[in-house]
Amino acid sequence: MILEIMQRAEKRIPHIVISRLPVYLRALRLMETQGKPYTSSQELAAWLGCTPAQIRKDLSHFGEFGKQGTGYSVNGLQKHLRNILHLNSEWPVIVVGTGHIGSAIANYTGFAERGFRVVAVFDNDPIKIGSQVGQFVVRDVAEVAAFVSEQPIRHAMLSVPADAAQSVADLLIKNGINAILNYAPVHLTCPPSVQVEYIDPVLHLQVMTYSVG
Amino acid sequence: MILEIMQRAEKRIPHIVISRLPVYLRALRLMETQGKPYTSSQELAAWLGCTPAQIRKDLSHFGEFGKQGTGYSVNGLQKHLRNILHLNSEWPVIVVGTGHIGSAIANYTGFAERGFRVVAVFDNDPIKIGSQVGQFVVRDVAEVAAFVSEQPIRHAMLSVPADAAQSVADLLIKNGINAILNYAPVHLTCPPSVQVEYIDPVLHLQVMTYSVG
Repeated sequence: MILEIMQRAEKRIPHIVISRLPVYLRALRLMETQGKPYTSSQELAAWLGCTPAQIRKDLSHFGEFGKQGTGYSVNGLQKHLRNILHLNSEWPVIVVGTGHIGSAIANYTGFAERGFRVVAVFDNDPIKIGSQVGQFVVRDVAEVAAFVSEQPIRHAMLSVPADAAQSVADLLIKNGINAILNYAPVHLTCPPSVQVEYIDPVLHLQVMTYSVG
Repeated sequence: MILEIMQRAEKRIPHIVISRLPVYLRALRLMETQGKPYTSSQELAAWLGCTPAQIRKDLSHFGEFGKQGTGYSVNGLQKHLRNILHLNSEWPVIVVGTGHIGSAIANYTGFAERGFRVVAVFDNDPIKIGSQVGQFVVRDVAEVAAFVSEQPIRHAMLSVPADAAQSVADLLIKNGINAILNYAPVHLTCPPSVQVEYIDPVLHLQVMTYSVG
């Protein structure tokens, strides 16, 4: 019951706070590779160009992780963050669309050590279907529904052309995908139960020209 | 003088507001391809899954763009946003690092129509230097300093391994780059005059496992 209340309370934590936890986790992993056993909100903030108060406030939503005097255990705080973000087991992810960016994702080796594993890649181009992309044989997108409905797969990375993104997303969602990382430069309209995150490099470049220009 | 004050005032507009303008612009471009002459904050909000009030408030930082009754001119509002974001001329961008992701960026055809043009790609791998990536012959990263200092290039996309990212960024900044889109999964420490934006797909996936898990 208390757990349930806590879980419901967690839901109300602002998205901006949640979105910073993976950034803290990434920095802590790097600190660990450098042999640091402890850190502080001051040190972490200096690494990340934010304020120590922001880090302390963000973490305070989830509990009390630091110790007076010694600060945070680098290993311990990583464990807490992985728990909070549900990263204790490896999540299977599919890639739909094997153009340049989809192929780059399929070849990227940095997922496994951070909680994800690409398990299959799909395309609708007859020339690409059956060809090798990284360690994967490209599957026909016509099989994607059967594939994701038979396995506990919730995550997809979508790297199809912009004009195909919504219909492919609809198909994925109908078959159990409820977390989409969308590389197509277009907004997706999805049910509230589905999470969508976006990667579009041009948006980032345009944000920077505001001040550079 | 008034322009100067306005420019200084602009600087104080929250980054979160600036970061949404390219999203509005992207949606307006799509509306234009669909032949829509006018739109409203309601329609734009429905497309983007946000509130009409947010759009109106964001735009109100920069002026009064809508007309009572007819709403926003799709073409006119795009022009205003391109002016605000300094997207009236094409910005040259370099790509440093031609692994899978750097090659995908170099091959991406979606930059030109949205204000950017990749003008050169660099790597430090002797096997890659001189080879073809998309329409580019890969240049030696040792030449990057000369290249960017001789031309009015301010933007770089950084797709080198994580442990090389900071030193390459330092080199770029020393030679006039002041806007970096960093694909390496590591935070960069840069002078305040330099803008850095980040793309790391794992951060997005981890944000989604918080709720999916």
